[in-house]
Amino acid sequence: MVQVPIVRDILSANERIAEENRRLLEMHRVCAVNIMASPGAGKTSLILRTIEAAGEGLRVGVIEGDIASRVDADKVAAAGAPVVQINTGGTCHLDAPMVRAALEQLPLGEIDLLFVENVGNLICPVEFGLGEAARVLVSSVPEGDDKPYKYPGIFAAVDAVVLNKTDLAPYVPFDRAAFRRLIAGINPTAAFFELSCATGEGMAAWAAWLKALLGRVRGTA
Amino acid sequence: MVQVPIVRDILSANERIAEENRRLLEMHRVCAVNIMASPGAGKTSLILRTIEAAGEGLRVGVIEGDIASRVDADKVAAAGAPVVQINTGGTCHLDAPMVRAALEQLPLGEIDLLFVENVGNLICPVEFGLGEAARVLVSSVPEGDDKPYKYPGIFAAVDAVVLNKTDLAPYVPFDRAAFRRLIAGINPTAAFFELSCATGEGMAAWAAWLKALLGRVRGTA
Repeated sequence: MVQVPIVRDILSANERIAEENRRLLEMHRVCAVNIMASPGAGKTSLILRTIEAAGEGLRVGVIEGDIASRVDADKVAAAGAPVVQINTGGTCHLDAPMVRAALEQLPLGEIDLLFVENVGNLICPVEFGLGEAARVLVSSVPEGDDKPYKYPGIFAAVDAVVLNKTDLAPYVPFDRAAFRRLIAGINPTAAFFELSCATGEGMAAWAAWLKALLGRVRGTA
Repeated sequence: MVQVPIVRDILSANERIAEENRRLLEMHRVCAVNIMASPGAGKTSLILRTIEAAGEGLRVGVIEGDIASRVDADKVAAAGAPVVQINTGGTCHLDAPMVRAALEQLPLGEIDLLFVENVGNLICPVEFGLGEAARVLVSSVPEGDDKPYKYPGIFAAVDAVVLNKTDLAPYVPFDRAAFRRLIAGINPTAAFFELSCATGEGMAAWAAWLKALLGRVRGTA
């Protein structure tokens, strides 16, 4: 038998399960953040730095999404956070059923903030809701300031843009003002952070935004 | 009516048109190279540097693939090469019908080497043959040396890997020996080039490989 996936059904089935994930996360008062980016923009580094910056006051859990390998999950586990690795086996994005399976493996009662690190891809992940409270796009200085032109869909769909690798700004052409103007044109309400996971510069504002987000999700802000 | 794309049919229809593209390119003695990479790895920069390095002896044409925008095509046109921009309008890869439409717009009799710059994506483009003579993956130093672990499919599917942005090696952790070992494990026959489109270092070996490829395609090498 030839398999016949029907696109509209896949998407609506995904949204139904995303809604179930959302209710499960709300029940456990977990704030889930879907982290999307190009390969190598620094998603895992941002998560590791945030775990470090959060300290004891904020209990972070992680779902790692990759085509293959468990290298990222091993790094997160070494940092002491509960983590589940999803290997999509070729699929170019996470979807809600994958995340549901991962949620079943996590101690949700012991997590405040749950990072869901998506597969490195600026296109497909945006189509699939996971039940998250917020979506964040990590961009990075060496990728160039023209990315909002070329991938407007993902820049339009996120609650925050994090520009990582600011420590490389002296060595590559990158017009930060132009980058911000492009984003403002596509998504004027997105929060914006510039930081370097290599040096730790700029982490405080990002960590403060996450804490405010958690407060809003829990109705305490 | 709900549209019902059937995956196997899409792929076989693509391969049929890729075969037609291949015959058209052979008829005009054009050597087409499918350039794939993450967003911001330097595909366009590599094409521009190659046009510069090729000089009068090698006539380069370009098909630019992007979700949106024509910024890359404008850069290529400014460099004096015939170019067609494909905007996929959301689709995460080029396919053979898109390339066929672009080929109809190009002066194939005046082109030796045709670069087809795919959409920035390490996953989906590899599923779709375009009729190309060779596939090249551009990776870049700031993306990190673990990319072959995470995206083995694309590293396995290419004829050459170009490691770009070697000028940034002093500023980021990147183990070149480990990167090469990973690639050798996945794809032992792939050609490998290290270069910097920013400084021009390493372009000669890459340009020589392209010329040898052109010779093989034309049966003159």
